[in-house]
Amino acid sequence: MIKYLALTPLFPAVCALYYSEDILPFLVTTVVMGGVGIGLERLKRDPELGHREGFLLVSLTWLVVPVLGTLPYLVAGEGTVAYPVNALFESMSGFTTTGSTLLGEISFAEHSHSILLWRQLTQWLGGMGILVLMVALLPQLSVGGAQIMSHESPGPTIQKLRPHIQDTARALWKIYFAFTLAAIGVYYGLHLIGVAPNMGLYNAISHALTTLPTGGFSPEARSIEAFSPAIQWAVIVFMVVAGTNFTLFWYVLQNKPRKLTHNSEFRSYLFAMGIVGALLTVLLFAGVGLSRIPTHIPPLVGDVEHATRQALFQTVAVVTTTGYASMDFNTWHESSQVVLLFAMFLGGSAGSAAGSIKIVRWNLVWNAATSELYTTVHPDTVHPIRNSGGPVDEDTLRSVFVFIFIFIGIFGVSTVLLYFDSLRIGLDLTGLEAISATIATLGNVGPGVGIVGPMNGFLPFSPMSKLYMVFLMWIGRLEILSVLVIFTPSFWER
Amino acid sequence: MIKYLALTPLFPAVCALYYSEDILPFLVTTVVMGGVGIGLERLKRDPELGHREGFLLVSLTWLVVPVLGTLPYLVAGEGTVAYPVNALFESMSGFTTTGSTLLGEISFAEHSHSILLWRQLTQWLGGMGILVLMVALLPQLSVGGAQIMSHESPGPTIQKLRPHIQDTARALWKIYFAFTLAAIGVYYGLHLIGVAPNMGLYNAISHALTTLPTGGFSPEARSIEAFSPAIQWAVIVFMVVAGTNFTLFWYVLQNKPRKLTHNSEFRSYLFAMGIVGALLTVLLFAGVGLSRIPTHIPPLVGDVEHATRQALFQTVAVVTTTGYASMDFNTWHESSQVVLLFAMFLGGSAGSAAGSIKIVRWNLVWNAATSELYTTVHPDTVHPIRNSGGPVDEDTLRSVFVFIFIFIGIFGVSTVLLYFDSLRIGLDLTGLEAISATIATLGNVGPGVGIVGPMNGFLPFSPMSKLYMVFLMWIGRLEILSVLVIFTPSFWER
Ligand SMILES: [K+]
Ligand SMILES: [K+]
Repeated sequence: MIKYLALTPLFPAVCALYYSEDILPFLVTTVVMGGVGIGLERLKRDPELGHREGFLLVSLTWLVVPVLGTLPYLVAGEGTVAYPVNALFESMSGFTTTGSTLLGEISFAEHSHSILLWRQLTQWLGGMGILVLMVALLPQLSVGGAQIMSHESPGPTIQKLRPHIQDTARALWKIYFAFTLAAIGVYYGLHLIGVAPNMGLYNAISHALTTLPTGGFSPEARSIEAFSPAIQWAVIVFMVVAGTNFTLFWYVLQNKPRKLTHNSEFRSYLFAMGIVGALLTVLLFAGVGLSRIPTHIPPLVGDVEHATRQALFQTVAVVTTTGYASMDFNTWHESSQVVLLFAMFLGGSAGSAAGSIKIVRWNLVWNAATSELYTTVHPDTVHPIRNSGGPVDEDTLRSVFVFIFIFIGIFGVSTVLLYFDSLRIGLDLTGLEAISATIATLGNVGPGVGIVGPMNGFLPFSPMSKLYMVFLMWIGRLEILSVLVIFTPSFWER
Repeated sequence: MIKYLALTPLFPAVCALYYSEDILPFLVTTVVMGGVGIGLERLKRDPELGHREGFLLVSLTWLVVPVLGTLPYLVAGEGTVAYPVNALFESMSGFTTTGSTLLGEISFAEHSHSILLWRQLTQWLGGMGILVLMVALLPQLSVGGAQIMSHESPGPTIQKLRPHIQDTARALWKIYFAFTLAAIGVYYGLHLIGVAPNMGLYNAISHALTTLPTGGFSPEARSIEAFSPAIQWAVIVFMVVAGTNFTLFWYVLQNKPRKLTHNSEFRSYLFAMGIVGALLTVLLFAGVGLSRIPTHIPPLVGDVEHATRQALFQTVAVVTTTGYASMDFNTWHESSQVVLLFAMFLGGSAGSAAGSIKIVRWNLVWNAATSELYTTVHPDTVHPIRNSGGPVDEDTLRSVFVFIFIFIGIFGVSTVLLYFDSLRIGLDLTGLEAISATIATLGNVGPGVGIVGPMNGFLPFSPMSKLYMVFLMWIGRLEILSVLVIFTPSFWER
């Protein structure tokens, strides 16, 4: 697999040629990746992959690839990512589609077009990998109740999108590729018809590459704030698409659109964004949602379109764990920021590249809670918890609940660790900053609030904290348990 | 039951006679309570109590008694609790053993000795009620997995402490009463031997009455800070006792002390307080745990005994949900306050009057999490989750997990509601203040941080917020579900 990955740096290399930039970083990466890929292929000749080998393969792949992905940054030697720890952070943030950045200054004065394009590309490649992982691999390994993610209904005939993993992967990748092309077309099309002056082809491609994987990297220092309202609305639409279960689009292509519109996860997903978006719209429109009025954008207060757009953009960006920003929400009132932080725990749909806990799990919690109220009154009744289509068995349900506890437990402990490690180097984080840095990386969201806000970055942290956040992005991306099991003694018993 | 409760105001009445204060408030309360009690007794002649009637009885009792408990405050007409909403808040806070207060000024200039004693007594009475509820009633009603609370092991012979609810209640009450007397003895004894100058008999009785029910009310404005280190250590010990499963003490009396020392819940309970206490001790000792150094108490920094005492006191007070304070932790650094806030979600042991989520539930979460790691690696093995002594069935486990989700969900929504209702009246809470006010009331802890800190109170909130917090204390005390079910349509279907 890494063998094929070796070809991908040639894409930014073409970009480098176009802009007369250095192509060496990409050639080096291609050669090293190709060498490692062919080497690994010779090593691994065992076609029978067991359960534990599956975890090792998945975990190590998401470690080795980001390590190799640092090569362009290190060889190019531009800016803050010329240093190994920073490069690893940025590369892991890319391949896990997190989007947390520690680029000091994001500009073409500091970085070449091709390096910034590579940064965008890492997210698109990461998203491809995650799609297969989510829909094909993790459900087979029964990670954190991931079984529910590939089930549309309990019948054995449609338990998988397609009978074989490879076919499933190919179908999903086609959809992913098609939506990426569509995003490029729409972004650049809006430029061509004159409503998006600065959305040239480079920007259109760059942002399409990080929209579909719910990535959030941008070669613009001010993210999507740099673009016109038309672009911002278009990005909202594509983010919603990117956070939807891609298998549902496959059903739409099979002329079964009701599979999408009647899907309980999809409905909850829209409902959650609707509620959070509406609340923030009201707050921004009334002005109580702002702690200071940003002067460099048109007024929000009293402007329905603008307030709605900003509230909805940030809501969708956070719930889908994309992490783009159409304005600096550090200017928001603490209460609105807290609402965004809560929304970071929701996560997008299963079967997408979105991170965090994910709507489908919260759906089950909600169903179990209402069922609990019923069975408390009627203790003799059996009241199975249902997913879209069918009842969920006790084991899966328990796995889902325990996953949420583990996620929140690791979040809590990590918040404390990051907090005190920062205090150690004299970086006095606020509680919200520590909380947001943790959920932003563990949930693969990207930006947080305060010093890790959307227009700032993760540069001020200590190297130890940065490496710890690399760990958080890694485990968060792989549904935590796939990685954690490797650290249990029972994993290594024969 | 209310009939017997009618006699309790006679106790502060005696106190009033001693201090030559007004006894009218207590006589009125006795007459009204007696009237209501006899009236209810005539109404209810049905000895067969069904499942739903059980919920109604429990919920309404914890509503009617606090309403009647406002009478002394209203008739006495002293200070801020002379107003109905405030009186209801203070009374509910008493009978639910919460200890959140909105007395404006706590002093004998403002309030009579007898009224403040009544306030203490409400907590002691509430604690008596909760003990029976926890060990005898709720497990039978299967509320939030409360089944696990009365089980020591799954064998049918020791599933209940004693075969009948009435016997169980009597045994627990004897232990409760004995420990209360012991606390009075120790507190007053320390006074007599000269190491607690201001712990007279009135104070000794008053504080014993709110230690054992994990209540936390104090007739001293500065809570336990007002007393000597010897008293503070003694209170720590009695708080630990108060947060322990009382049924275990019964086994100790039966000459089975290993039942206590080998109990997994008791060990986790001590372990949790040890970890949090040690962390805070280090922080306070080093001084990084303080945002400003309090000048009215001896220095903490560098003093092992003082730092340990303060860290341990606040830890035990919060984990047992007692809510006493031996210093104003508003002077602590935000990080230490966040540690305390996290600890508020732990809760004491089942079978005590402690509130919040409770250690036994977190124990199960931990066991389920480690089991999940194991079964993820070994999917074909069966790995039952165990409680102290025996495996826990899937239904109970699910109830426990769902309870935690419901608790945290209500906590989250309530934080937002209290926050915005406060903003409405121009009370600009910080995030931590809103969070702490919610968990302090829902978890029956008592004080929070900032404006609801241990030396401040809940007076500044709007009447609507106060009534909402009355609701939170009420549902939190009754394991939430016992109350919530009443609001479901299916409860009222015949
Ligand atoms: K992201
Ligand atoms: K309390």
